[in-house]
Amino acid sequence: MPLLPEQQAEIDALRNTPRPTLRAVSEGMERHLYTAYPVLDHGFVRTIDYMGDDAAIVQAARVSYGRGTKSVQNDEGLIRYLMRHWHSTPFEMCEIKLHVKLPVFVARQWIRHRTANVNEYSARYSILDREFYIPAPEHLAAQSAVNNQGRGVALDGDEAARVLEFLKADANRAYDHYEEMISQDGQQGLARELARMNLPANIYTQWYWKVDLHNLFHFLRLRADTHAQYEIRVYADAICRIVADWVPLAYGAFEDYRLGGASLSGRALASIRRMIRGEEVTQENSGMSKGEWREFRAMIDG
Amino acid sequence: MPLLPEQQAEIDALRNTPRPTLRAVSEGMERHLYTAYPVLDHGFVRTIDYMGDDAAIVQAARVSYGRGTKSVQNDEGLIRYLMRHWHSTPFEMCEIKLHVKLPVFVARQWIRHRTANVNEYSARYSILDREFYIPAPEHLAAQSAVNNQGRGVALDGDEAARVLEFLKADANRAYDHYEEMISQDGQQGLARELARMNLPANIYTQWYWKVDLHNLFHFLRLRADTHAQYEIRVYADAICRIVADWVPLAYGAFEDYRLGGASLSGRALASIRRMIRGEEVTQENSGMSKGEWREFRAMIDG
Amino acid sequence: MPLLPEQQAEIDALRNTPRPTLRAVSEGMERHLYTAYPVLDHGFVRTIDYMGDDAAIVQAARVSYGRGTKSVQNDEGLIRYLMRHWHSTPFEMCEIKLHVKLPVFVARQWIRHRTANVNEYSARYSILDREFYIPAPEHLAAQSAVNNQGRGVALDGDEAARVLEFLKADANRAYDHYEEMISQDGQQGLARELARMNLPANIYTQWYWKVDLHNLFHFLRLRADTHAQYEIRVYADAICRIVADWVPLAYGAFEDYRLGGASLSGRALASIRRMIRGEEVTQENSGMSKGEWREFRAMIDG
Amino acid sequence: MPLLPEQQAEIDALRNTPRPTLRAVSEGMERHLYTAYPVLDHGFVRTIDYMGDDAAIVQAARVSYGRGTKSVQNDEGLIRYLMRHWHSTPFEMCEIKLHVKLPVFVARQWIRHRTANVNEYSARYSILDREFYIPAPEHLAAQSAVNNQGRGVALDGDEAARVLEFLKADANRAYDHYEEMISQDGQQGLARELARMNLPANIYTQWYWKVDLHNLFHFLRLRADTHAQYEIRVYADAICRIVADWVPLAYGAFEDYRLGGASLSGRALASIRRMIRGEEVTQENSGMSKGEWREFRAMIDG
Repeated sequence: MPLLPEQQAEIDALRNTPRPTLRAVSEGMERHLYTAYPVLDHGFVRTIDYMGDDAAIVQAARVSYGRGTKSVQNDEGLIRYLMRHWHSTPFEMCEIKLHVKLPVFVARQWIRHRTANVNEYSARYSILDREFYIPAPEHLAAQSAVNNQGRGVALDGDEAARVLEFLKADANRAYDHYEEMISQDGQQGLARELARMNLPANIYTQWYWKVDLHNLFHFLRLRADTHAQYEIRVYADAICRIVADWVPLAYGAFEDYRLGGASLSGRALASIRRMIRGEEVTQENSGMSKGEWREFRAMIDG
Repeated sequence: MPLLPEQQAEIDALRNTPRPTLRAVSEGMERHLYTAYPVLDHGFVRTIDYMGDDAAIVQAARVSYGRGTKSVQNDEGLIRYLMRHWHSTPFEMCEIKLHVKLPVFVARQWIRHRTANVNEYSARYSILDREFYIPAPEHLAAQSAVNNQGRGVALDGDEAARVLEFLKADANRAYDHYEEMISQDGQQGLARELARMNLPANIYTQWYWKVDLHNLFHFLRLRADTHAQYEIRVYADAICRIVADWVPLAYGAFEDYRLGGASLSGRALASIRRMIRGEEVTQENSGMSKGEWREFRAMIDG
Repeated sequence: MPLLPEQQAEIDALRNTPRPTLRAVSEGMERHLYTAYPVLDHGFVRTIDYMGDDAAIVQAARVSYGRGTKSVQNDEGLIRYLMRHWHSTPFEMCEIKLHVKLPVFVARQWIRHRTANVNEYSARYSILDREFYIPAPEHLAAQSAVNNQGRGVALDGDEAARVLEFLKADANRAYDHYEEMISQDGQQGLARELARMNLPANIYTQWYWKVDLHNLFHFLRLRADTHAQYEIRVYADAICRIVADWVPLAYGAFEDYRLGGASLSGRALASIRRMIRGEEVTQENSGMSKGEWREFRAMIDG
Repeated sequence: MPLLPEQQAEIDALRNTPRPTLRAVSEGMERHLYTAYPVLDHGFVRTIDYMGDDAAIVQAARVSYGRGTKSVQNDEGLIRYLMRHWHSTPFEMCEIKLHVKLPVFVARQWIRHRTANVNEYSARYSILDREFYIPAPEHLAAQSAVNNQGRGVALDGDEAARVLEFLKADANRAYDHYEEMISQDGQQGLARELARMNLPANIYTQWYWKVDLHNLFHFLRLRADTHAQYEIRVYADAICRIVADWVPLAYGAFEDYRLGGASLSGRALASIRRMIRGEEVTQENSGMSKGEWREFRAMIDG
């Protein structure tokens, strides 16, 4: 499932031949274009195209608010104002197109974000490669004891070894049989659209994924979060590094207001007001449930 | 632009004839069905149909999380958990269809919420009625002196009277000419799709608007907010009262986590931690701009 | 991955207890509610809820077009007019919520239709069941020789037997190892979110899928088509049978204008005009490519 | 409502300074960038930014279909194949951002296309300019006698003159009063968000509108159609001319398959088959209603 040689040649040619444009150009992003940043054992993220930069966000906001935006001193202040007040449409004026190679079980989570454009490699038309995600031993974690979702500590060495052996052997056997089933050597050969059903969810697929900056931030807020599964978080982290260079002011505001921020319920806000006044607040007198209180304390204690 | 008599008759017949269904029924919502709640001087909101109730949200969450949801003690706890952690898809399993009559300038704001289905009265096909929004004198506010957006104090009596006179006379004259232009009495009669351009933005239109509960909450959070323009906020408030009876548990969670809550930036969160520890925090040592600090203090002081 | 017993009990209770409602009721649909129609070897489709009926489509159109719709004689004529002229918003006023159990590789195709609401069973939280799609021998088809996509004739008996043996044995072995990996008997137990990656794409998942009628028709047009993969087409066919009873007039128009209709290019239209005039039209003088001409002839010859 | 001088200066600077980029560049589009093409009496369309070109569509399709696409001889053939078979996702990989100035009643039609990003000039924050659409006399058409929607012949001279006098005088008077109401000269000054309600629907607004190529084609198919209102059709026509230079292969396929094509119902297809065989087909034996038959004959007769 690599690119066809002629596709790769086409991209290489583009990469090596800067061409003049009158469009907005983000210098920080130009340096990332086409570079495939490795993620997991066989995956990658690379930027194929982008539209707009920090100035395009400001420009769109100024079309909306006209002279009203003149009072804000500078672009950074305006961008932070927009982020703080959930004025999302100016951020929608930037767009990014990524080429991502990722395991199928990660792709299944990713696609739940519906406001994006996707072209995925089709296993109806084409043959998948023998490439499977096999976790590094330190990422083989036990089921969390306190949380239905999520992981606990790493498996110990013997158990980890058994797991790896299962994952590797099953993937390879499934792929051997996939090849045998579609083979037309001495037999008719099963249709690809059927044979693919034998392949496990750690096989790699790839897609072009195009999204506007507002919806990308929403994706990153959920997927770069510590509650996200490790295998999708590493993709979100790789994208964060690219976006930080593409639109540094917008990314800075996103980091402060979304990634590093917190949402308070009315009960949490009331508790904070009391705590600042020096009152003793407990779960019992806060109105919060035990679960809410635990999360609230974790947020306050940092 | 009232309903056609046969449409009204059809709705009345429905209203008076309960029919058996096997679907989920919200008793609280059944009492609101078809009732037109007045908003502004000629507008209304009324519920035409709905799908689902609090139990449908819980049911969808349990399909997703399976036995994982058993540990949450009850429906209310589960719904609050979903709202707190931005698990939005179970709320999308409820749907509401509203019939709304509203001034065109309100409709123009409203339609910016794109994830909804809309059928609006067409002034290409049909003739608009002589109905205009004329604000009550106490709602004729001056431009805010501190805020490019929004209103300040009410206009004094003489100025208010002049404004009302302009609004009424201009609307009526525009409508007189609209009628004259489309009249086929002794002339050809201008096409309706052209004549409508003479009508001002306070004329009433109406539409059917259908939306899922997650996107409705997003709309209500922005439009029932004190920063929203009064003329759309009164529609949001009317819808809030309906939703509170339709899905009382979900609405309760929405009130606590969204309407009554707050979003903290990383800088605001750090300041709160310091304040709780008893430190003196000022705008200068908070890292916030003056604008952010003013909003932060307003949130903390309540 | 069956429903929890208490979920099933809840649904059974609903099913057996008609309740009064003032909403629009579709008698045809009430008979289908909650019934799980079998699809493939372990899958099903069942309707959980619906909003609207044929009259709701007409009602919405009449709000839009006002008295303009009076000239159309009856509901069926109006619905056919709307379908013929791609007036899609009145169809969006109906909504359906389905509970579907389906193999993962079918789910992956299905989810490409983005304008819908989805709650899928989560294998991060919960344990998947040992249920795999194993095709009936007559559906084990060879790769098409003329088409990169799609199937040719059925495999002969020996080859089919080998394929079935691979599919069954690999699925069972993968599931055995899945169970061993998550087991906490004498070991820590791998996190579910990791163990699931060993499972093949023919394992069954399930979801709640909610969509408006316009977008459902779009889905059905593509997926009930003869070019769609058999394994998704049988779901589309099952849904068609339900929709035909829910909104018989709209479904009739859909069948005539979409399922049974065709799209002509400008070149095809010009060719048809010439053929009706009695001219001899060939691929060469039609302006069409060979592929287009082949499809055009197939359409004309029926 | 012109751009702020500093905004205009920013755009002029961009326009005059080509910068190197590694992205895909469409030479045809670069020549259009930033140029404001006049539409109606005060409106315009201009391209602010774009992403992708014909090659980007092909590239995305090849990611999806892999080696399966090699059999198609060339880019044009592949693009026509994608258009013919409604494979829409590769077209979604191109994006355009337009700056449009347009009358409010046109904006209200336009915004019904929901899958796009919009930043509109806000009359809550800023003051609208005294610019109104006043139709040229030859576009002042009478209401159609045969069609509830749409126009008939042009008004005769005297009636046209009366209409123009109404439109001009009412617009100017409404604007005079708008200015008087918001004036802070010797009075408080009405809030802008209220004063705007006095302005008629032919006042100009402006927005940034960003959309992918698939959804743009959908917009153009409906709005460049002869049934669309003239005042939106001229915008669609202006955009068509830009798109033809941006993605010439995709636009060519769109012209043939969508703009110049036709949709056949099952009944229409059956009638065509009979006509080609030389049978006499009449409305009565076609199964079509009178309206359908009239439209069918118009299509066949060209």
